[in-house]
Amino acid sequence: MNQDYIKPNAWSIIEEGFDAARVKSSESLFSLGNGAMGQRANFEETYTGPSFQGSYIAGVYYPDKTKVGWWKNGYPEYFAKVLNAPNWIGIDIWVDGEPFDLNSCTQVTDFRRELNMREGWYQRSFKATMSNGAQLSVSVKRFLSLKLEELGAISYTIQVLDGAHKIRLEPYLDGGITNEDSNWDDKFWNQTAMESQGERAFLKAYTLKTEFHVCSFMANRLCHEGNWISSAPETVLAGERLGHAYELDMEKNETLKLYKFGGYVSDRRYAKENLIPTANQILDTALEMGFDTLLVQQVLAWQSIWDTADIEIVGDLKAQQGIRFNIFQLNQTYLGNDPKLNIGPKGFTGEKYGGSTYWDTEAYCIPFYMATKNQEVARNLLEYRFKQLPKALENAEKLGFDGGAALYPMVTMNGEECHNEWEITFEEIHRNGAIAFAIYNYTRYTNDLTYIPEMGLEVLVGIARFWAQRVSFSEPRSQYVMLGVTGPNEYENNVNNNWYTNYLAQWCLLYAKEQLQLVSKKYSEDYERIVKKTKLEEHEPGQWEEIAQNIYFPASETHGVYLQQDGFLDKELIPVSDLDPSQRPINQKWSWDRILRSPYIKQADVLQGFYFFEEHFSWEDHKKHFEFYEPFTVHESSLSPCVHSILASRLDKVEQAYAFYLRTSRLDLDDYNKEVEEGLHITSMAGTWMSIVEGFGGMRVKDGMLCFDPNIPANWHSYSFKINFRGHIITLSKTQDEVSLRNQGKTGLRVRLLDEIMDLPAER
Amino acid sequence: MNQDYIKPNAWSIIEEGFDAARVKSSESLFSLGNGAMGQRANFEETYTGPSFQGSYIAGVYYPDKTKVGWWKNGYPEYFAKVLNAPNWIGIDIWVDGEPFDLNSCTQVTDFRRELNMREGWYQRSFKATMSNGAQLSVSVKRFLSLKLEELGAISYTIQVLDGAHKIRLEPYLDGGITNEDSNWDDKFWNQTAMESQGERAFLKAYTLKTEFHVCSFMANRLCHEGNWISSAPETVLAGERLGHAYELDMEKNETLKLYKFGGYVSDRRYAKENLIPTANQILDTALEMGFDTLLVQQVLAWQSIWDTADIEIVGDLKAQQGIRFNIFQLNQTYLGNDPKLNIGPKGFTGEKYGGSTYWDTEAYCIPFYMATKNQEVARNLLEYRFKQLPKALENAEKLGFDGGAALYPMVTMNGEECHNEWEITFEEIHRNGAIAFAIYNYTRYTNDLTYIPEMGLEVLVGIARFWAQRVSFSEPRSQYVMLGVTGPNEYENNVNNNWYTNYLAQWCLLYAKEQLQLVSKKYSEDYERIVKKTKLEEHEPGQWEEIAQNIYFPASETHGVYLQQDGFLDKELIPVSDLDPSQRPINQKWSWDRILRSPYIKQADVLQGFYFFEEHFSWEDHKKHFEFYEPFTVHESSLSPCVHSILASRLDKVEQAYAFYLRTSRLDLDDYNKEVEEGLHITSMAGTWMSIVEGFGGMRVKDGMLCFDPNIPANWHSYSFKINFRGHIITLSKTQDEVSLRNQGKTGLRVRLLDEIMDLPAER
Repeated sequence: MNQDYIKPNAWSIIEEGFDAARVKSSESLFSLGNGAMGQRANFEETYTGPSFQGSYIAGVYYPDKTKVGWWKNGYPEYFAKVLNAPNWIGIDIWVDGEPFDLNSCTQVTDFRRELNMREGWYQRSFKATMSNGAQLSVSVKRFLSLKLEELGAISYTIQVLDGAHKIRLEPYLDGGITNEDSNWDDKFWNQTAMESQGERAFLKAYTLKTEFHVCSFMANRLCHEGNWISSAPETVLAGERLGHAYELDMEKNETLKLYKFGGYVSDRRYAKENLIPTANQILDTALEMGFDTLLVQQVLAWQSIWDTADIEIVGDLKAQQGIRFNIFQLNQTYLGNDPKLNIGPKGFTGEKYGGSTYWDTEAYCIPFYMATKNQEVARNLLEYRFKQLPKALENAEKLGFDGGAALYPMVTMNGEECHNEWEITFEEIHRNGAIAFAIYNYTRYTNDLTYIPEMGLEVLVGIARFWAQRVSFSEPRSQYVMLGVTGPNEYENNVNNNWYTNYLAQWCLLYAKEQLQLVSKKYSEDYERIVKKTKLEEHEPGQWEEIAQNIYFPASETHGVYLQQDGFLDKELIPVSDLDPSQRPINQKWSWDRILRSPYIKQADVLQGFYFFEEHFSWEDHKKHFEFYEPFTVHESSLSPCVHSILASRLDKVEQAYAFYLRTSRLDLDDYNKEVEEGLHITSMAGTWMSIVEGFGGMRVKDGMLCFDPNIPANWHSYSFKINFRGHIITLSKTQDEVSLRNQGKTGLRVRLLDEIMDLPAER
Repeated sequence: MNQDYIKPNAWSIIEEGFDAARVKSSESLFSLGNGAMGQRANFEETYTGPSFQGSYIAGVYYPDKTKVGWWKNGYPEYFAKVLNAPNWIGIDIWVDGEPFDLNSCTQVTDFRRELNMREGWYQRSFKATMSNGAQLSVSVKRFLSLKLEELGAISYTIQVLDGAHKIRLEPYLDGGITNEDSNWDDKFWNQTAMESQGERAFLKAYTLKTEFHVCSFMANRLCHEGNWISSAPETVLAGERLGHAYELDMEKNETLKLYKFGGYVSDRRYAKENLIPTANQILDTALEMGFDTLLVQQVLAWQSIWDTADIEIVGDLKAQQGIRFNIFQLNQTYLGNDPKLNIGPKGFTGEKYGGSTYWDTEAYCIPFYMATKNQEVARNLLEYRFKQLPKALENAEKLGFDGGAALYPMVTMNGEECHNEWEITFEEIHRNGAIAFAIYNYTRYTNDLTYIPEMGLEVLVGIARFWAQRVSFSEPRSQYVMLGVTGPNEYENNVNNNWYTNYLAQWCLLYAKEQLQLVSKKYSEDYERIVKKTKLEEHEPGQWEEIAQNIYFPASETHGVYLQQDGFLDKELIPVSDLDPSQRPINQKWSWDRILRSPYIKQADVLQGFYFFEEHFSWEDHKKHFEFYEPFTVHESSLSPCVHSILASRLDKVEQAYAFYLRTSRLDLDDYNKEVEEGLHITSMAGTWMSIVEGFGGMRVKDGMLCFDPNIPANWHSYSFKINFRGHIITLSKTQDEVSLRNQGKTGLRVRLLDEIMDLPAER
């Protein structure tokens, strides 16, 4: 069974009751982030039970030396990973000299966590009896400010319940942190300064090799029974840790409140000489505004996010909670204002995947950000890849391609490849196509025609050149083939003619040619610049077209479907439903060779292509392919169920779509994959959003027009979602019987609902 | 250019002149071994220049924890490797207090090394001027006794040339050694005792985890100007090192001779409580016999090896030196008297491949040992795999096969798999076929019909069951296919229907069935025992036959050849000769994906099958396949040129065969692969032997009869070789014009020479 301790609630994630076995899972689920930094829901006070500590600063990474059993030419030297950063949330507590630690308390009652997604804060409260008999009631609220992106705030309230006690509080900064995930136990940080200034403290450190300079900071204010305590704290230095100790005597039922403001400033944004002054300025603001005012600001900031991003589901609380959790976490991870940042598969909730960028961004996240934010955000995500084009050119050259061909990395932080499995690093090249597709998708959705001439076209040329070289000509087939690739379904390696990859390659070649022509006509200056810069030769576009028109696609006449790759039908086609459940998930039960020769599909592959290029195929084709491939799909990637959900919706298999939706939306809340302790699946959360908006809502952009073709699961009363389409906030509301659209824009919008074209007037 | 400093000589490997850049290469080339232990040609005295120290004890290994970047189910936990053992050869020298070290001498002249292959010893001599001005002439001879397998002996002679000096000698044992190749810098040895007994010393240590207990020992005798020095040495303990120091004053031109006897006894052969007494007994014998008598014994022992194993080539000194070097090193590595031992690809000359067993043994080494030694030796090699059958059954089970199927490991020490690349560990399964083929090959050659009923049949049943489960039925082909394998050509991974693997599988299935029938008729008791033990069901052999008769083989009608695997013709078939030489070796220049989608063949694959099953194919088929595949073969495995040499001989392409022969026979002497510093390619040396005996000599066994079909390279005057065929020592001598055969057996032998059947009378 999946985990089910999270209380269903429309706007909050709630845990009740203390269970040490759930602490790591909850640390993931109750994570906070503000796009610039993020942290797991670790306790502020000492906790000696099993815990996974993590606090991360966006863009601050370390090139950890690659670990590999058998080296192969072309492997990268390192894996860049976002690092666990100094701990600024820590507050140690002693009661009559005994450290306060939930793990050693004799009783913990009324334990409750709440992650309030509507307002963007996290609260934890409980009553505890310590082994020395002292009884405390504690309530902690914390948030990472959306407005002041370097700042977090904590209010830590303690009430003594049983009598008089001497309380010692030590809020601290701790640079003595490590990554759980480290290949060679290297030291990642070098700490250079600890400085105490009255109620404030600063800790300076830089990352080794990459030399990101970071100043962690804190300021603390203490309020006893409503009275501010003005006495200066004692400074406590211990190793790489700097604490401020306060001691006072409390009577029974008295309350003590510690406000801790902290966070990071780094030379990613500020001059490294000015880090402490900058931190001081931020603290000036924070202390002046105070916790409660900052919190009001936070609530308002989240309100404006929800205004354009919320999805409401009535009649299915778990489904409602799931989608809001997904939208909330995506926004905690990436807000889109920094084109040097991207979206790591686990965001700021764990170390796995190193916080690096995968093709998840282009295939899953961009549609979400495009539709829920200003189009600049999606443009920033595209620009991220444009800026990394030089590295993609280098990467292709390193693998033996001629200059001018670009191969984007499978995993990256700064544009260089990080991953080191040959079947993925060198062969999972479809990622290159997803990057081109995102350019197309962005242009289609936003109608922003400037991105391609300004930046996108260079990327398209590099990618087209890659495909043109990566295919080879098969004499016996008299067609171009693509040998030795790994498709999105990573349960096949080094296959020939993966249909999805071939199809994407063909599309890229034609699209690059088409865009070249378009730009040459409409943006001739840009065209000249790009031709010069890329040294484009006249024959190239024609050659791309020739290749595209002659790419081979494996297919089966018997089954009337395209084949995932050459030889797929040689497999023993036993459907997943006939597999012994004890054998699943197969990636935990079977050796790799057995997985490879099986027909089982980790995630949508041919169907991913049908999802991308829906309009290229008939409804009947969709049906045939869905019905052929779905029975072999094990969905052991978080990125799979959402695509199947969308396709099932399109095929009017609404209940199947709903089952996939539940799986994708509550993947982490219900811990389907038994790994939520490691962190959340952030990028697939965008897929969850798509399975409602594009799936149930049937939202598409066709010929520049926004179209909807909605359906609704039988057990829902209604649902509604908002999208930002070219400046219009469009709300679709669907009940079992009706569908309605609103347009909160400045002008009217012509849309298509089912088969009807209608004009939606502006509401104001 | 390849290296060429080794002086051509018929019986010796000779180096002249001191060059520090060659030290590591010569340490490999001048290695010594006696089957039970072996060592690189490290200097006895301190040497501070680049050096690679190695001394190895057969069968004493350590399970080094696996290093892997991305773990996959089924990977082994460790890689068992033969360890660098305590150093027993060390002799430190001080002249007037200054350490003697060739790396810091101001002049070194008359430096010469000789590895005398006829007599089995290694000598090094030189004159050196130290930085304090002292001039020495040094001559060192050393050997590892074939008769006393735990014993090595050194005579170290020093003459002072320039005047009177105080000489301090410190022969020592040193347990403070490490492996260069260690995954996690683990400690491999735990030293437990150092003991000095007069002129003798002992050092006890055991390997961690595997707990092999080893006693390293030494005894030293000093002779000054012909007079034995009787004074007891000073014992010097330093860390894990135990030395015996001698000091004396020498006048100009006086000579000092140190005899050092040393080696290892281990609990692989002796009780661990008795290791020091056993070492003492060995030293008793050694000291009683003395260096010179031991050396005479050594010369005689090598003489008897050469008596049945020598190959003489007249008119081509480099070719002569090459083949003797190969035969010599094979005999240094493995003598065949211990069925628990096997032949590591680098023997005792380096750490690479961990001294573990590969399919090299069955495919390459067994023919050599069968024909140059008593047939017991080859039987011991077969028995090695029989004893490891339980682990092969376990291994198959671990990979998801039903009980009773056996998959032998790709790399092993004790029967467990050591390797951890999925494309090899799980997919290079043809090794299983080589193990069955060796049983067939042994039976064919020796006519020993008892091995199969006694041991071999169980192995054949396990292997047949593996293949029967490993194939799958392809509906569209209505045939059995073998998906996801790696053939001998490791430049293709995870391919479908590798022809070689399919062919071997077919053969194994039929051979196992045939042998079951044979044993059931002639050895019914053995048959009953095996059926019971293997729980063989009645239907199984029939099922094997059904599968074998319906296995699919990829083929091209256009080219009239079998295809290496499905889809081979989709590749761009550009011959190696058209490759830019700067791109080679491709495994050092190209990324793995590029190698995989190229047509280039690392080592014989389809042609390996033609070599094994020559009689299944016509001469024309051989020609077509050789001419089709040879142009794409890059021979980047040491195991490749010999097979191509044999096939070229058969196809009367004698000069091509000769080119391959030179490449294989002088691979290490001329350092074709620029890696001889790491050690020698021992197992491929058996392939060199085959390329003369089976290649030029055309030796085959057909229907129980020994056959020859000899040719000769144009630049050779003549060659002759000896083989032991069923107790007859047969010598074939071939000149440009004539061929003759001798039979040194007790009885006559009927053989076929070219197309003529003749009776060879016994010579005595």
